[in-house]
Amino acid sequence: MRIERVAIIGLGLLGSSIALALKERAPGIATSGFDANPKVRAKAEELGLVGQVCESPVEAVREADLVILCVPVGAMRDAAVSIADALKEGAIVSDVGSSKQSVADALAEVLPGRCVIPAHPVAGTEQSGPEAGFATLFVGRWCILTPPADCDGEALEALSNFWAGLGAKVEVMDAAHHDLVLAVTSHIPHLIAFTIVGTASDLEDVTRSEVIKYSAGGFRDFTRIAASDPVMWRDVFLNNREAVLEMLGRFTEDLTALQRAIRSGDGETLHDLFSRTRAIRRQVIEEGQETPRPDFGREH
Amino acid sequence: MRIERVAIIGLGLLGSSIALALKERAPGIATSGFDANPKVRAKAEELGLVGQVCESPVEAVREADLVILCVPVGAMRDAAVSIADALKEGAIVSDVGSSKQSVADALAEVLPGRCVIPAHPVAGTEQSGPEAGFATLFVGRWCILTPPADCDGEALEALSNFWAGLGAKVEVMDAAHHDLVLAVTSHIPHLIAFTIVGTASDLEDVTRSEVIKYSAGGFRDFTRIAASDPVMWRDVFLNNREAVLEMLGRFTEDLTALQRAIRSGDGETLHDLFSRTRAIRRQVIEEGQETPRPDFGREH
Repeated sequence: MRIERVAIIGLGLLGSSIALALKERAPGIATSGFDANPKVRAKAEELGLVGQVCESPVEAVREADLVILCVPVGAMRDAAVSIADALKEGAIVSDVGSSKQSVADALAEVLPGRCVIPAHPVAGTEQSGPEAGFATLFVGRWCILTPPADCDGEALEALSNFWAGLGAKVEVMDAAHHDLVLAVTSHIPHLIAFTIVGTASDLEDVTRSEVIKYSAGGFRDFTRIAASDPVMWRDVFLNNREAVLEMLGRFTEDLTALQRAIRSGDGETLHDLFSRTRAIRRQVIEEGQETPRPDFGREH
Repeated sequence: MRIERVAIIGLGLLGSSIALALKERAPGIATSGFDANPKVRAKAEELGLVGQVCESPVEAVREADLVILCVPVGAMRDAAVSIADALKEGAIVSDVGSSKQSVADALAEVLPGRCVIPAHPVAGTEQSGPEAGFATLFVGRWCILTPPADCDGEALEALSNFWAGLGAKVEVMDAAHHDLVLAVTSHIPHLIAFTIVGTASDLEDVTRSEVIKYSAGGFRDFTRIAASDPVMWRDVFLNNREAVLEMLGRFTEDLTALQRAIRSGDGETLHDLFSRTRAIRRQVIEEGQETPRPDFGREH
């Protein structure tokens, strides 16, 4: 099975990055795209993101061997409904959503008999929209595929090769495990960042101007992921509720234990934990998932 | 009052950065330095950090107009005791500790009649040691001075000018308020980062290798500050206990509210918060406290 025509539904950060990566790394693949927002379509046209910016999802997917839904996870079902009758025989339908079980269920339900292979490239920035995309977003990052049990082997291989062609490393796992893993490595970090940034901006005894001035003490790091797309993240939390609540419970337990250590002056507990966490960063760097430069390579 | 000779006690990230900044921006100022660790002294000698690496704190401070204690806040008292009898008449004693009330109290107690002006440059990286320092660390960052009520005006002005000379912006506030502000902008963010990195590395149902592989989803951001110096941070929490517990209480309240919103499927509450937090990052960038480049300017 060869993927020769790709349709991208949703031309935000992820959709536009896929488009640009294809242009750069697989110029032989024909691309079409659609976005529900006419301004985004106009911008996509202006930037030349895809070969053809279409006025309807139906038009975009008609010839495609692979359709990638790049919309918030809460909008996946409607996006799938809108293309269901227009899909080419044998086309693969995939997505880039950050939670997978609910997306897998929705797509399976509204696209019966179709080849649905949910996917999640673990990559992004805090920016959004068609101008935020760039061709190297997926290079060295992992793309997790969560195929259904009865998935066609050739289609799975074709989708794996597609992502590898964009520079990603590909892993296959089941949707439920994906949702648990990403709850820890992505969803809870986002939830915590949103929370602390909200807490800090609502204090009475410390002004917002002070919070901003002295943010280089650590707070500014959290503002980055707290600047991520609000709709996308609302949908992630609503769609991965069980795993997020489970992991949040563990985090809260651990935080309570540290709170007790601080209250009781137990420096040993604090020092033990702080020494262990240092090693994790080294491993993240060694695995190629982070820059070795101090301070993320920020300019000083 | 002119500062012509500076002694730096403790030659880690902060001490070595002050030394390098002086070399670059104020080469007329003579510098001496001491570190309790002989290996650090040898490294400082090798790197040529200060004019004279001394074998004792007494030797280092004898001629100094300004002594800066660059040790963990829990070691400030002992460091001050070790130099008390050797200080030159009229010398200013300052520090770079991340909490100020406990340091101010300790220094006032063991250095009676001396000109003590606690300070906190809100700058750093996750790295530590004499090789981690660099001359531009303080450029554009705030340095907060927390002078006692009876502080000598000329000395305060001299210390302000000193930090401005290293590129910092200077603010004066009282120690208690400093500790509250920094609890929000620095200490709680660190505590949360240490906690989530600890939580993630201790799960049974998600392996550490998975956490590391998929860390680009947000988790890797937290590993940076969770890689900060364990002794320094243990001391911060033990020495700014009240403010940290107060702010932790507010954070936990807000987190509980979000947890409830997720559990009940209240997307509006989530979306409202996530929209507000986005604006804070813009302000942090506008204030010059953060790079405008996406993803901290990480290379892709």
